[in-house]
Amino acid sequence: MTKREPQRPKRSVRRRRNDPTGLRDRVIDVAFHAFSTRGYNAVSVHDLREAAGVSGGAYSHHFPTKKALALLVIERHVLKAVRKAWIEPVVVAPTAAEGIAEAFAAIIAELESKQAVTGCPLNNLALELAGVDGDFRFALQAVFAAWRNALAGKMRADNTAGKAGYAEPDTVAAFAVAAYSGAMALAKTSQSVEPLKLCAKELASYLSVAARNASR
Amino acid sequence: MTKREPQRPKRSVRRRRNDPTGLRDRVIDVAFHAFSTRGYNAVSVHDLREAAGVSGGAYSHHFPTKKALALLVIERHVLKAVRKAWIEPVVVAPTAAEGIAEAFAAIIAELESKQAVTGCPLNNLALELAGVDGDFRFALQAVFAAWRNALAGKMRADNTAGKAGYAEPDTVAAFAVAAYSGAMALAKTSQSVEPLKLCAKELASYLSVAARNASR
Repeated sequence: MTKREPQRPKRSVRRRRNDPTGLRDRVIDVAFHAFSTRGYNAVSVHDLREAAGVSGGAYSHHFPTKKALALLVIERHVLKAVRKAWIEPVVVAPTAAEGIAEAFAAIIAELESKQAVTGCPLNNLALELAGVDGDFRFALQAVFAAWRNALAGKMRADNTAGKAGYAEPDTVAAFAVAAYSGAMALAKTSQSVEPLKLCAKELASYLSVAARNASR
Repeated sequence: MTKREPQRPKRSVRRRRNDPTGLRDRVIDVAFHAFSTRGYNAVSVHDLREAAGVSGGAYSHHFPTKKALALLVIERHVLKAVRKAWIEPVVVAPTAAEGIAEAFAAIIAELESKQAVTGCPLNNLALELAGVDGDFRFALQAVFAAWRNALAGKMRADNTAGKAGYAEPDTVAAFAVAAYSGAMALAKTSQSVEPLKLCAKELASYLSVAARNASR
């Protein structure tokens, strides 16, 4: 390229032609899909480069290690997935309980239109990586914290607005996240939405009691 | 070996000296620990052979594929771990709710005496393997089914004995397994037993309502 266009500044030409930002984003997109469905350790850097159509040199320039790429995937795409599936529906719902029910319903509806239950990206990566590496653990923990805090915050808002009376919003939020996470593990293993449906119903019953008990 | 002892029957000598059953069990033990803590894809056959102190030939004779070994690990050790931690305590407890509380308490106590939360062997392997391979999925699903059925069976027994009135034991059992599984995912990610403690408390509250509501 520099031989053909010797007069142009090398860096800007390379930037325009190679589109490094696009390339970087493409690799992160491909890695998010591959890591969260097949697993971090099941996917090689070679697989990722092939799927993204990126040369070894360009790849290595942006992602010196596979771990660096995975941390970007967690901090960017996994957080975004949890925001979209859980935090946003709960924040805009009339109440925490309704938001949680809507999050479950939307996820169930989406899975019913698909062929496979690939599971929750956050839980998939958490169970694979949180036990073996502190950096992964902190990144994953931050996403769980954002999720739990959003639910607890909505419950506190429900309390303030007189819509509910949760005595321990943080505890109830942790339980809701746990119940969903485990239900998705059962759904993935059975390749069926049935455990999500059962758990959505039981969680709704639990939440109605948790809110009612506390407001007595 | 056959050169030094030419008079003895070759097969029986080899069997006695090499202890193939012991070797096989040792590899399965090592694989259970490695797969359920570090992950199936994170551990190489070479790692397993090294840790078990087994030659390549002997290893390949017993385990033609890594997958064959992992299926044995699930069908034998993962099921055994779920039986020990969950099924047995629940079966012998006065009620399902008390058994579930005892299972949580024993797991929390064990984790508090350890340095690390490695998580639930079943859930760790389920999230890594259930989405990618039908054989793994069926083996993992069988363990979840044994767990759910044991809890549901105890709830039905509680109903029969007049100790509780669960309207839908299968649903309540699925919810309990999901809540525990998700709580352990949170515990692993935070490397803390706190999510297990919170969820044990909330699950106890949910179970008391589920049993009471139904018996009205």
